[in-house]
Amino acid sequence: MPTLEMLSFSDAAPGFAAGKSSPRELLETGLENLARFEPGVGAFVGLDVGGARAAADRASLRWREGRELSPIDGMPVGVQDIIETVDLPTQMGSPLYAGWRSGRDAASARALREAGAAVLGKTVTTEFAASEPLGDTRNPWDLRRTPGGSSSGSAAAVAYGALSGALGTQVVGSIIRPASFCGCFGFKPSVGGINRGGSHDYFSQSCTGVLAASLADAWRLAREIARRSGGDPGFPGLAGPAAPPPPRRPARLAIIETAGWERASPAARDAFEAAVGRLAAAGIGVARRGEDAGIAAVEAAVANAFELTRGINAWEGRWPLNTYRERDAAKLSRAMLDRLVAAEAMRQEDYAALIAERARARGVFEGLAGNFDAALTLSATGAAPLGLASTGDPIFAVPASLLGVPALSLPLLEAEGLPLGLQAVGFIGADAALFAVAAALVEVLEG
Amino acid sequence: MPTLEMLSFSDAAPGFAAGKSSPRELLETGLENLARFEPGVGAFVGLDVGGARAAADRASLRWREGRELSPIDGMPVGVQDIIETVDLPTQMGSPLYAGWRSGRDAASARALREAGAAVLGKTVTTEFAASEPLGDTRNPWDLRRTPGGSSSGSAAAVAYGALSGALGTQVVGSIIRPASFCGCFGFKPSVGGINRGGSHDYFSQSCTGVLAASLADAWRLAREIARRSGGDPGFPGLAGPAAPPPPRRPARLAIIETAGWERASPAARDAFEAAVGRLAAAGIGVARRGEDAGIAAVEAAVANAFELTRGINAWEGRWPLNTYRERDAAKLSRAMLDRLVAAEAMRQEDYAALIAERARARGVFEGLAGNFDAALTLSATGAAPLGLASTGDPIFAVPASLLGVPALSLPLLEAEGLPLGLQAVGFIGADAALFAVAAALVEVLEG
Repeated sequence: MPTLEMLSFSDAAPGFAAGKSSPRELLETGLENLARFEPGVGAFVGLDVGGARAAADRASLRWREGRELSPIDGMPVGVQDIIETVDLPTQMGSPLYAGWRSGRDAASARALREAGAAVLGKTVTTEFAASEPLGDTRNPWDLRRTPGGSSSGSAAAVAYGALSGALGTQVVGSIIRPASFCGCFGFKPSVGGINRGGSHDYFSQSCTGVLAASLADAWRLAREIARRSGGDPGFPGLAGPAAPPPPRRPARLAIIETAGWERASPAARDAFEAAVGRLAAAGIGVARRGEDAGIAAVEAAVANAFELTRGINAWEGRWPLNTYRERDAAKLSRAMLDRLVAAEAMRQEDYAALIAERARARGVFEGLAGNFDAALTLSATGAAPLGLASTGDPIFAVPASLLGVPALSLPLLEAEGLPLGLQAVGFIGADAALFAVAAALVEVLEG
Repeated sequence: MPTLEMLSFSDAAPGFAAGKSSPRELLETGLENLARFEPGVGAFVGLDVGGARAAADRASLRWREGRELSPIDGMPVGVQDIIETVDLPTQMGSPLYAGWRSGRDAASARALREAGAAVLGKTVTTEFAASEPLGDTRNPWDLRRTPGGSSSGSAAAVAYGALSGALGTQVVGSIIRPASFCGCFGFKPSVGGINRGGSHDYFSQSCTGVLAASLADAWRLAREIARRSGGDPGFPGLAGPAAPPPPRRPARLAIIETAGWERASPAARDAFEAAVGRLAAAGIGVARRGEDAGIAAVEAAVANAFELTRGINAWEGRWPLNTYRERDAAKLSRAMLDRLVAAEAMRQEDYAALIAERARARGVFEGLAGNFDAALTLSATGAAPLGLASTGDPIFAVPASLLGVPALSLPLLEAEGLPLGLQAVGFIGADAALFAVAAALVEVLEG
């Protein structure tokens, strides 16, 4: 196994103002890692090294002069290639968009630039940020394994230390799963938390989020974007302090199994139970479905989260897939074509029933808020599986996607000697509170 | 004044199956009107006469054989040029998008084609469907006057009889106002009612809607689109029967003045009061702010609807305007640049406060639902004003936009010998009920 070290911007930043280091130096470390690992991993679909160096230089000067634009001024970042950028093509993991340029930055990409971040490149996405890995990005921990997806390149590049953070998107498991497989932090905000303008994922559950080298980087990156881009139209957007929320030891955690548990590997289950045991030993209250009626209700409400999500996404994904099929069906994967056929068998009333059921599930989960500080579960069924044909099982990531609640994958577990994420799940709009709980979990489990 | 006759598809359709006429014949009538009026009016920015004729021919055959694809199979329609079409450029009323092609149909345009409609062309929009008329579309009733906007070309082309219906969008007053000025039917659905995928209006209040030659055409067009495209992701979409809801005489109507009343011309006020008098004389109950506490509360809640809308749109419109300004500020109007500067002075918290106030206003209006069948007001402050530099005052259209409720402009009034709309406003999700009330109003006021 390679020795991978992530590139935490937050850890380095105190040195920037003091002149001990600079964003440019951090970027150069990232570029060394890029030179070493990228040929094997293939995380990027487009690079702008010159542009990133220029941005890092400008930021370095600003930090030295005490006039940095933001806490992420000069942070080396990547952008999942489902999100528009003005300087590099946006190809969406699809041959239909080979070389396509939108002529503008997406709202999130624009916010990154306003905050001074150094955009190093576009990262590989699965086809239209869905299930099919048309690129061949590999897991930096073991090149025979998938990095997960859809935010495949974002997770891999953060994990091998090219970037401090990267944009990703999640509608099923596209942030939490690759974060788990690659061993970085992954944050899917509350639904609507970060403006998706110019991101080509059109689903009602879909969120722009981040993959990051540290919990502090994840918070700062997401928060500085939301401050500038807002949330999706009609949503207030991710709110909270500029500084990462300090650790707040939770009083009680809801341990949820979800439909993923019976598919989890023995090693993954053991790793999870050991972590829960250590939290309990540290005095944190934990409860499970057998011990709390609210948790039992949640388990029932999310038991079919995957099927609900699949139906909702099918209807919502008819367009633009139907126009793409008409344009050139040969440039769509078989999975996409099958999905479209299934979608076309749905009626408007079927969809209305599915979103009504989702709304009901959201209400049930919200009922936990009075009694628990967060819910805890696995991020994935085990370590990244062998092979590149599939991005792995998303099952553990789906409930938070369906519920629209914030979720964090924390790289605190291991299975088969490979990374595995512990997933902390919070309540809608209470993203900052989830970070405070997560920081406490890191303290206990890394302590 | 010209003699204008609209091209109602619903009136003609009974003859299609009987072989007495055909969608192709209806289209040819539309093309005669196009030849006569278009040179003076300038409603279209792109035409595909050959494509429309071919579609109408296919539909004509289907109707004769009793296998029409939908009740709008072969309907001659236009698409506001803020909405993507695969065959014609999408230029958004902006030189930044001159000649731009997206390579796909928007969700609504795609639904039109699936339903068999004959898409004749793209209709002129103001710059990015906002306030600035960068084209010079004229009002077909008086070429010295504005047709209103942003759906300028859609309203004008329906009014002079080229089309039975056309797609428009409204976030402030972009459907109701031009419908009023041009004397056609205008329908803004409940928020989320028609999928906006591929329509470049990104505002939380924005809706895709229709301009139409008859109330039945408006219903059929909107309903057949929603059936195929759904609503915006996360919304069930416009629901109801395939056939236009039959007239249902309302028991009580809430007469609302809103901030528009004091800006309305004496002629417009007189026309409105005369209509209300006739409705009352026909036995329909009417109440005003002085007679009903619920109405008084609504009047108070929407008194600042324009200012709230302006603030909400400013924040939501930062992107993509900020990227366009960076690309080429000279290709944006002064109004757009000013709006962006104002938006950049806003903070995320300011926006959160505005949408909270909007949510409160929506709750107040919903409170009328138990006591009234609909609300009634003017569609505009008077006839279309002289000049093309402004698209006129949108003030009467703003409350329904802010409230997210369905609104219909009915061409039942006159002022200065020119068309003026009577606006019927319904409750969220109850679009079909609003059509039933509107049909009854047409019966009484045209009877």
